[in-house]
Amino acid sequence: MRMPNQSYQYQELFLFCRSVLEKIGCSSKDAEIATRVLLSADLRGVDSHGVARLSGYVRLWEAKRVNAQPSLKILHETPSTAVVDGDSGLGLVVAPYAMQVAIDKAKNAGTGWVSVQNSNHFGIAGYHAMMALEHDMIGIALTNASPLVSPTFSTERLLGTNPICVAIPAGDEPPFVADLATTTAANGKLEILQRKAGVAPLGWIQDKQGKPSTDPHELKAGGALLPLGGDREHGSHKGYALGAVVDIFSAILSGANYGPWVPPFPAYVPMPEEQPGKGIGHFFGAMRIDAFRKAEDFKTHMDKWIQRFRSAKTVAGEDRVIIPGDPEREFAAERMKTGIPLLKPVVEDLKYLGEKFAIPFLAS
Amino acid sequence: MRMPNQSYQYQELFLFCRSVLEKIGCSSKDAEIATRVLLSADLRGVDSHGVARLSGYVRLWEAKRVNAQPSLKILHETPSTAVVDGDSGLGLVVAPYAMQVAIDKAKNAGTGWVSVQNSNHFGIAGYHAMMALEHDMIGIALTNASPLVSPTFSTERLLGTNPICVAIPAGDEPPFVADLATTTAANGKLEILQRKAGVAPLGWIQDKQGKPSTDPHELKAGGALLPLGGDREHGSHKGYALGAVVDIFSAILSGANYGPWVPPFPAYVPMPEEQPGKGIGHFFGAMRIDAFRKAEDFKTHMDKWIQRFRSAKTVAGEDRVIIPGDPEREFAAERMKTGIPLLKPVVEDLKYLGEKFAIPFLAS
Repeated sequence: MRMPNQSYQYQELFLFCRSVLEKIGCSSKDAEIATRVLLSADLRGVDSHGVARLSGYVRLWEAKRVNAQPSLKILHETPSTAVVDGDSGLGLVVAPYAMQVAIDKAKNAGTGWVSVQNSNHFGIAGYHAMMALEHDMIGIALTNASPLVSPTFSTERLLGTNPICVAIPAGDEPPFVADLATTTAANGKLEILQRKAGVAPLGWIQDKQGKPSTDPHELKAGGALLPLGGDREHGSHKGYALGAVVDIFSAILSGANYGPWVPPFPAYVPMPEEQPGKGIGHFFGAMRIDAFRKAEDFKTHMDKWIQRFRSAKTVAGEDRVIIPGDPEREFAAERMKTGIPLLKPVVEDLKYLGEKFAIPFLAS
Repeated sequence: MRMPNQSYQYQELFLFCRSVLEKIGCSSKDAEIATRVLLSADLRGVDSHGVARLSGYVRLWEAKRVNAQPSLKILHETPSTAVVDGDSGLGLVVAPYAMQVAIDKAKNAGTGWVSVQNSNHFGIAGYHAMMALEHDMIGIALTNASPLVSPTFSTERLLGTNPICVAIPAGDEPPFVADLATTTAANGKLEILQRKAGVAPLGWIQDKQGKPSTDPHELKAGGALLPLGGDREHGSHKGYALGAVVDIFSAILSGANYGPWVPPFPAYVPMPEEQPGKGIGHFFGAMRIDAFRKAEDFKTHMDKWIQRFRSAKTVAGEDRVIIPGDPEREFAAERMKTGIPLLKPVVEDLKYLGEKFAIPFLAS
């Protein structure tokens, strides 16, 4: 029998996750798309957003906060915009649908911009933004999330880690993919420190009075993650402003919940009272390169940009300047070959799901 | 006679600046627009981007890097996009033209996105983005700038302070206007410390070896500004990625210069060799609110968002959570009443321009 904390092949995890999603009632097409999104996080090294979350999605379905058979539809549109109703579906299914609407709009109008209401956690932003690349388009994916972050000077948690992802095609070079939470550190990094009983660097979190803290468990005691910048002197008002823009584009343009009213991911956390909108909100963009200039010329200059930055002189002890997307792509190539390592609690979680739905968790 | 460091009325500075710009050959319409952009920075408290730069623009014109009578034109377009050729014009003139193209596109297609080549420094980003507000649109303004910033792990300066501005209309509340350099601190803040012989906080700058420094004069010795985040542990790779996106949208989509090849603002600094594009690049966006939902509903929720954030509980010693745009709006209201304070060297600079062009610098 295989030991926990071992690596699992992409294909075996794929079949397992897809079966679980089919068991909760997803169509085989939706289960396949959602699994692809989920596992792209594990492949790219964003372990916090991959199979580790599968049982969380199942619990949201059990709590009737996720609709496994949503009717996705466009509520309103213009040549370059649309608002999509996610019908409480899995964000893993709603987001690729909405991104496809943005891509289709861009084919005709040059760009497409889609704001989404009534959705749930959409997994890794990079998957959705990168859908644009094969069409020679720039892809953008934003989402709001349950409130864990305090704006500068606030002791209340009013924003999620609200990520921004921008994927840009290049020519001979691999694409540029920036995928960043608008906080100093993503919540996943804090979870790693919690498991290790480590200490967080100053600037990541504050305690419930708003004082700087290094305790990674601070969030459970009323503390908060800090916006990118960390404190006012180092520009936290900028991280706060960026997180706010993500919230507004995702939720106020679409009619989703925003700020402190965004639904929590854990199914056991009660929903906020008097919610002003529906579900979680996302925002997607697609820009056709040749709506601006010849795609070939653009790619030639992207290659030049990437090569110039990658070959820049470095500070002592560092090999190279990293192009956004490099580490995740290297992770994915490696893990597709050698397998995806899973922590023991994640394996236990998947086994539990396997028993629950009578799907053996991988040939043991 | 009035003492330097005193305050000057908006209207008197307006007439003076407009005359100077007419003297270098701007049409009266262009001189008026450029002056309005320039002074909006002084009004909003962004002193580094206002009349303090007028003599710098004049020197660029003397060095034949600025064309006072540009033929602005659209090089390529689709229903929602355009590329504008700034014909080496003042960015103060090119940017409002290009933003208007974005607004006009949005009227028909729902959104408008304009990338600009062959321009110069465009002043304060906020002015351009805020042009969208009166049309019930969200406005976006980005620009690249001459290289002062080192990407994470680099000792070379490859990016400008590349600002992002997003202006969003509200209802009863004033608009939300986020206007931020993608660095820990804007260059203007460093200039203030240089004048005061002050010490910069750690995380703002590095020396030429890439080591953290607190010396505000470090840039003259081969040092660099740092991306928002400050260092890798605090997310500087995110500030770098955001600055990179601004560079690519502004210059690689349009055919302007990018990265280390962006023309320097001071006319005495030689142009980089083998430039891959034309001039400086900008990027503008306009999104019609009612391309997503009824403007009235959007504004009701923006008001609720703003009121919730503004009334959040604060850390000890702080009155309130600031909504992006609040400080600049309060500055503008105050300075429109009591005048715009100018530092002695700025007054000397304006006097010099007044003598040069035989325009008395304000009734003294």
